[in-house]
Amino acid sequence: MPKLKLTYFDFNGGRGEANRLAMAIGNVPFEDKRIPMSEWPELKPGVRFQALPVLEIDGEEIAQSNAINRYVGRLGGLYPDDPLEAARCDEIMDAMEDVTNKLVPTLFLSDEEEKRKAREALAEGPFKLYLERLGKVLEERGGEYFADGRLTVADLRVFLWVRHLRSGALDYVPKDLTDRLAPNLVEHFERVNSHPAIVDWYAKH
Amino acid sequence: MPKLKLTYFDFNGGRGEANRLAMAIGNVPFEDKRIPMSEWPELKPGVRFQALPVLEIDGEEIAQSNAINRYVGRLGGLYPDDPLEAARCDEIMDAMEDVTNKLVPTLFLSDEEEKRKAREALAEGPFKLYLERLGKVLEERGGEYFADGRLTVADLRVFLWVRHLRSGALDYVPKDLTDRLAPNLVEHFERVNSHPAIVDWYAKH
Repeated sequence: MPKLKLTYFDFNGGRGEANRLAMAIGNVPFEDKRIPMSEWPELKPGVRFQALPVLEIDGEEIAQSNAINRYVGRLGGLYPDDPLEAARCDEIMDAMEDVTNKLVPTLFLSDEEEKRKAREALAEGPFKLYLERLGKVLEERGGEYFADGRLTVADLRVFLWVRHLRSGALDYVPKDLTDRLAPNLVEHFERVNSHPAIVDWYAKH
Repeated sequence: MPKLKLTYFDFNGGRGEANRLAMAIGNVPFEDKRIPMSEWPELKPGVRFQALPVLEIDGEEIAQSNAINRYVGRLGGLYPDDPLEAARCDEIMDAMEDVTNKLVPTLFLSDEEEKRKAREALAEGPFKLYLERLGKVLEERGGEYFADGRLTVADLRVFLWVRHLRSGALDYVPKDLTDRLAPNLVEHFERVNSHPAIVDWYAKH
């Protein structure tokens, strides 16, 4: 097994969290380097694309959270071998990246009215679309998991998004949005959330 | 070989173009369905995430251009088998998707002054960063290709971006930006551009 070090911000969410969960579930040992936001400005210029997470693999830096998901997913048995199943898994991870890209600009709005408008537009636009479509895809694929009939890194990304939505942490996005638009994604959330390795991980973090 | 149909807009660029080139180079037969923009509003609601390209694989729809690149890359020998080489390939494809996401909003600006500001900020900000960093990564990986010591789908995405930049099609982005910031990406561009299957493809398109 290569020596792995994941560098990401010091909270249990964001793009790096699926990387951590994939390694925890797959029993892939790694150094979980969490940096405080105060250290980021100094670190940033030296990071490959000036963004986190990055994974060091025997000292070699690899950027991009979904590239990392795929790599550690292969090591830990959470990424499909079959090309079509891999495509189903990849499609969902990239869709979640689209959602993240739409969310991120609204995280740093200081004007409350501007934030309200942006978040309401998100909830009624892309979030509604992706929830409904992901619910439909999940149903078409048997209702339990997004690829390969088992837990993969795609499920981890959807799980983390639905958890974020349902937590109420996003002002002006109704926390029951998933429950109303895609009840099967709530069942999917509960399915992943009760995985013993995830329960164990969050008992410690 | 599964029956493949790629649906994308009717021009030789954008997110779907690497999909086409990967299949052309890999001798993967496919239906190259090109739709005029005028048909898009009618088609859009029925497409998985309301975005193109999509690939039908024996009738099953798969969205997301890099998921498609990976799938057809596997079929045509343009995607690495080795997990670390695959991570190197994935990282570059996802970086190119970041660049595309930064570019796209500037394509639809009607106010000329607003467009000038946005494009100049792109050129001096993310474009400069990604060109310099990609040039450095290419050098670290031997100077010829981004992964696996041979042509992969990662090279196709970088090739298409550099071609776009050097074409002068982007107003207010200097067409010699790549030549000035990352001369080895220009050599890489020439390397990919002279591949017999690419020469052959563009002789017909």
